[in-house]
Amino acid sequence: MASFSELTTPYLLLDPVVMQRNIDFLQQRMEKLGVQLRPHVKTAKSLQVAQRIFNGGHGPITVSTLKEAEYFAEHGYTDITYAVGISPDKLARVARLNRADVTVRVLLDSVTQAEQVMAWAVREQVKIPVLIEIDCDGERAGLRENDPKIVEIAKILAKNDLFSGMLMHAGGSYHCPSKAAKEAAAEHERATAVAVRDRLQAAGLECPIVSVGSTPTAYFAKDLSGVTEVRAGVYVFQDLVMAGIHVCQLKDIAISVVATVIGHRPDKGWIMTDAGWMALSRDRGTANQEIDQGYGVVCAMDGTPYSDLIVTSTSQEHGIVALRKGSKAKLPQLEVGSKVRILPNHACATASQFDGYVVPDADQLAFWPRINGW
Amino acid sequence: MASFSELTTPYLLLDPVVMQRNIDFLQQRMEKLGVQLRPHVKTAKSLQVAQRIFNGGHGPITVSTLKEAEYFAEHGYTDITYAVGISPDKLARVARLNRADVTVRVLLDSVTQAEQVMAWAVREQVKIPVLIEIDCDGERAGLRENDPKIVEIAKILAKNDLFSGMLMHAGGSYHCPSKAAKEAAAEHERATAVAVRDRLQAAGLECPIVSVGSTPTAYFAKDLSGVTEVRAGVYVFQDLVMAGIHVCQLKDIAISVVATVIGHRPDKGWIMTDAGWMALSRDRGTANQEIDQGYGVVCAMDGTPYSDLIVTSTSQEHGIVALRKGSKAKLPQLEVGSKVRILPNHACATASQFDGYVVPDADQLAFWPRINGW
Repeated sequence: MASFSELTTPYLLLDPVVMQRNIDFLQQRMEKLGVQLRPHVKTAKSLQVAQRIFNGGHGPITVSTLKEAEYFAEHGYTDITYAVGISPDKLARVARLNRADVTVRVLLDSVTQAEQVMAWAVREQVKIPVLIEIDCDGERAGLRENDPKIVEIAKILAKNDLFSGMLMHAGGSYHCPSKAAKEAAAEHERATAVAVRDRLQAAGLECPIVSVGSTPTAYFAKDLSGVTEVRAGVYVFQDLVMAGIHVCQLKDIAISVVATVIGHRPDKGWIMTDAGWMALSRDRGTANQEIDQGYGVVCAMDGTPYSDLIVTSTSQEHGIVALRKGSKAKLPQLEVGSKVRILPNHACATASQFDGYVVPDADQLAFWPRINGW
Repeated sequence: MASFSELTTPYLLLDPVVMQRNIDFLQQRMEKLGVQLRPHVKTAKSLQVAQRIFNGGHGPITVSTLKEAEYFAEHGYTDITYAVGISPDKLARVARLNRADVTVRVLLDSVTQAEQVMAWAVREQVKIPVLIEIDCDGERAGLRENDPKIVEIAKILAKNDLFSGMLMHAGGSYHCPSKAAKEAAAEHERATAVAVRDRLQAAGLECPIVSVGSTPTAYFAKDLSGVTEVRAGVYVFQDLVMAGIHVCQLKDIAISVVATVIGHRPDKGWIMTDAGWMALSRDRGTANQEIDQGYGVVCAMDGTPYSDLIVTSTSQEHGIVALRKGSKAKLPQLEVGSKVRILPNHACATASQFDGYVVPDADQLAFWPRINGW
């Protein structure tokens, strides 16, 4: 593809060296803890990123859309968990995938859904393996660990050999800045999952898969006994939200939005850039953290953050860059036409604003496409 | 394309009847006020929508990206204003367009930019008409009306016959719930623009284009004397932010995200859907309005809003639907698999999460693509 100087901003830059460090760190951590990693490809939605995760192989993956499932299945991935509650309108596509020598597990938390999946599996004579979703911290979907419906649903599914285990996501860990709180969230996630497995086993049901995960708990779990796999997504890129709860540092953030300075408001202390919310996303994930990073931290093109310089406001194609409130730093001199890199609040959200990544790779520029949409 | 029952949710539904009503309303209003409308195609980014705006013709348009400019130029639009401050990296593409019997006007607010544009125009022997950006309410880019640089820049540009006029956007009007405040914002926008024109004329400079606009001021201006054109974008679709400041009503919102119910949390009063922030966007534009609509208002498939039912929280592919805080309404019974329509906070942001619109049109379903990206 084009050289850097020919690229129109805003574009999404991916540093493959930083990304590989993140990939290797969590892989090694999971190996030490003796647990399989099932990366969530929803963050990158990229075949090329997945190739780096699996070192050219085709390991087990988690997906957030059927479009991801279909894309990765087409490219050799055969072990896929679709980690969003299943609804009947999606079962034709799931069944089609499961026919083609690919396993796509679905997720559910009600008798109704279990019966819908069963009906499809029987009618289409296809196996659709199912995980029951468990909620450990009240953040989202799932049955509470002591809900008798867990065993009831598992029994319905087991009749047709569709019951594969349980899945849980400790979303509450995103609000844990302290090490102790993240460690506690990880242990709570593990212990809750194992308790559910034990209840299923006590009811005479096998629970082959005990799947937990989130980037913070994956990074801070000290023990994963009883867990068969860990899911994590954002760790591949990291972001300001993760840095804000001390899961990573700014230097670990592998993606940034490259923007061009398009003007100044000296009367207001503003530098205007061409990266508005269309490029950065509307995500304000750091708004309630200890340090509010606005719409992103502004760095020089070598990746060094400018002191206290953040995107304070955005419109569709305008970003207002200014010093953090109360800062004594000096506004850098950035002429019209200068380039900056902006670190994202939330890598999943910012990356989703682009159709792919610009990747400097051995003196060349590559473009790695994303599989957006549903 | 497929029938409704074959579509995978989430998808973006566009009601062409409601849209046409919005289009006709503003068109007639501008005709009464005797001013040309230059619609901003950044909201819809759709050729088919633009065809409805111009009744099959190719009127003057405003764009927010060069990709829009190139796309619409390819499809017969020859009068284009690129309403984001120009930077040197974009001039090759602008020059290429201006060569091909198309006029793409650029925007700037500094001597540096004027000199950069001039250098390109001279070197490439191409005319690049320029508008000077004026700020009337401190919201974004532009020179203040009394800044001597306005005349200085216009004189530099006029030497090569590149000066075309001025452009202003009353972004502050988005924070005006009362009729009086919106009327005042419109009059302030008009009066400031005319004052700038007068200063230019007093300095011996022609100012052929006096361009103002925003949907709220376009809807509430009582007089547009001296203004040559009005720009507006979101009016085509409308949204909850516009309804929240009484520019429109909920029934005027032409787009909605269709979602499927994927679960329930009776312990929390939640209905889970498959429309998370990936579909709805992270935009929380109603957060500081009189009525906070969360991530959107939930309606039945016929478009009728459920009492007090909003999307209270989102993750990437999950939406949590619940009653507004303090509501005495009853949570509707929506089984897994049921469809709902969600009205967006901000039409530009929500539409940008999709690659196009599903449009029911005379017993058929059409798909109208969007031109996303840069």
